[in-house]
Amino acid sequence: MAKTVGVIGGGQLARMMIVPAIELGFEIKVLAEAEASPAKLAATVGDYTDLETVRAFAKSVDVITFDHEHVPLHILETLVSEGVSVQPQPSALLYAQNKLAMRKKLAELDVPIPDWAEVKNAEDIDLFLAKHSGVAILKTAVGGYDGKGVRVIRSSADAEDWLSFGTPLLIEKVDFARELAQLSARNPSGQWLAWPVVETIQKDGVCAEVHAPAANANFHEAARVAEIIAKGLGVTGVLAVELFETSDGRLLVNELAMRPHNSGHFSIEGSVTSQFEQHLRAVLDLPLGSTEGASAYAVMLNLLGPSTANTFSERFEAAWSLENNSHIHLYGKEYRAGRKMGHITALASESLEAARAQALATYNALLA
Amino acid sequence: MAKTVGVIGGGQLARMMIVPAIELGFEIKVLAEAEASPAKLAATVGDYTDLETVRAFAKSVDVITFDHEHVPLHILETLVSEGVSVQPQPSALLYAQNKLAMRKKLAELDVPIPDWAEVKNAEDIDLFLAKHSGVAILKTAVGGYDGKGVRVIRSSADAEDWLSFGTPLLIEKVDFARELAQLSARNPSGQWLAWPVVETIQKDGVCAEVHAPAANANFHEAARVAEIIAKGLGVTGVLAVELFETSDGRLLVNELAMRPHNSGHFSIEGSVTSQFEQHLRAVLDLPLGSTEGASAYAVMLNLLGPSTANTFSERFEAAWSLENNSHIHLYGKEYRAGRKMGHITALASESLEAARAQALATYNALLA
Repeated sequence: MAKTVGVIGGGQLARMMIVPAIELGFEIKVLAEAEASPAKLAATVGDYTDLETVRAFAKSVDVITFDHEHVPLHILETLVSEGVSVQPQPSALLYAQNKLAMRKKLAELDVPIPDWAEVKNAEDIDLFLAKHSGVAILKTAVGGYDGKGVRVIRSSADAEDWLSFGTPLLIEKVDFARELAQLSARNPSGQWLAWPVVETIQKDGVCAEVHAPAANANFHEAARVAEIIAKGLGVTGVLAVELFETSDGRLLVNELAMRPHNSGHFSIEGSVTSQFEQHLRAVLDLPLGSTEGASAYAVMLNLLGPSTANTFSERFEAAWSLENNSHIHLYGKEYRAGRKMGHITALASESLEAARAQALATYNALLA
Repeated sequence: MAKTVGVIGGGQLARMMIVPAIELGFEIKVLAEAEASPAKLAATVGDYTDLETVRAFAKSVDVITFDHEHVPLHILETLVSEGVSVQPQPSALLYAQNKLAMRKKLAELDVPIPDWAEVKNAEDIDLFLAKHSGVAILKTAVGGYDGKGVRVIRSSADAEDWLSFGTPLLIEKVDFARELAQLSARNPSGQWLAWPVVETIQKDGVCAEVHAPAANANFHEAARVAEIIAKGLGVTGVLAVELFETSDGRLLVNELAMRPHNSGHFSIEGSVTSQFEQHLRAVLDLPLGSTEGASAYAVMLNLLGPSTANTFSERFEAAWSLENNSHIHLYGKEYRAGRKMGHITALASESLEAARAQALATYNALLA
């Protein structure tokens, strides 16, 4: 009998997991926050912070996995104690939920990370700033994403609100030349496979563009770091390691995500095995698929809701009249300015520039 | 607003149309025969031979298209008269439903076809057999597929049952070296695009294997014939033209299907645009996508239910341990011997043989 994968969270990542489930003949069920979620084709609506709801959902599937990392750990720990397969396990997911726990663990594993310190009070901040030429990044330990929960600070006064809330905080300092992301996957049996490291280009703290593979990157070092993390933290499923590359070529770990990730969307067309298929295979403890390129180069551009209402599908005619090698993905979301509503991946055999030119032409046609 | 595609029929073709709908952000609704259909994620259950059911379904979508060609024409004609977009239109679909009408129309369009004759009585058969060395193929004009409704006959006595039922019949004679299939698509605005012609290998009247592109084929002639048919019959959506290749290299039209077709499954991984995405684009009257190869060679093998119960998903571990470039597709069907339950597509850059060797290794692992 075909296995049933249960995904908590009904966003675009769950939506894109439905595709390999259809292709491979797995059953898939999604526990979504709302009726009109991107993953609605496979969704039932329920509250993922309610133990009874999640427990009932778990009974209908063979494995629980995630579209996001916000499920309370105590719920997942209860499920595990009741014999449910939760992948990644809460003992690993902890490090994707809590940046303080993650920094401590990575330091322990001797993984290269930025200078950092835990922040308990204003003095911790001032001390760190004094040592780091007066400017640093303050982060909330939990809850941040896409630029939220992250702040540039020049004095402890800039952190007054967060300090007064008692939010667990950490402070970091890194001078980087660019950002990379290392995607890999691991199954519970221990098989681990990496895609080539990619370059990610952020705009206002949100991923705007991904180049796969990254030009002139230290592929070996990026994969080495990801392997230590995947194995050291016991990650299962897809692991995204966001990396800073310094001007002298060192790679320092920024953030972790234990699920398919925006930086891996290129793999849908660009790799033999997409990150979404790999995630399903991994959480079901099946052998992983090849992470080789289906094309030499891929460039992905995110489609963020522009300033005027546009769900992009109105512009398919213009975009497709270009007759290029771009693949458009829309997530079925209602329009909102700045919202991640879809992405474009363009492939090319000759260069990243050739792929990017096609993606950009399609992007411009969709936004015109 | 994203358009909604309505598919009548809940089989594997509808299932595989759900994938590009998810990717492109189209809504998709399927009118299926049964709850447990392959396309169940998008399905409501209803009787496609009931006008009221189909009419109500049509009201919830922007265009009606098909997983199979069995919807009664009078229902579709009623919908068209009520302003519903039905693609392909019943005026075209007629020729996929009725082989007698198809043969007459193709003869009129001067498309190369086998020697044939309409059969109204035993004399018609005997006359045709006398002219064609005593053996020919008898076909029912409607309802045949996958070897059903087709019979080799050596005398009119072999056709006694069909003649006594009054079934409309035709008789044909062709000596062919191999079979090909020409996939193409046309939108209502008239844009038409063809994939390279493929070779199809039948076993017991059912497609077993597809080689894309066909080795040493007359690509130009195959595409020429398909274009005449697509335009001459006013086909919209994907058109599959099954062809006989004679030993002296002529191409003669065998059957037509006006929907994605088994011979085009290779295009999911093997082409820039899959036949399923192309079908959605075509029936929505949007520009068509590139039909170029995403890989130089692709070989597809059908997974038919073997003699012992096996839904193939039990064998993923063995198949994926091969680490080759095969892509497995399962349709979520319950096991039945001989049933089309899935397919495998393998890609290779060097040769058809290299692709076939990988597909076959995966096939053997799944059947072991």
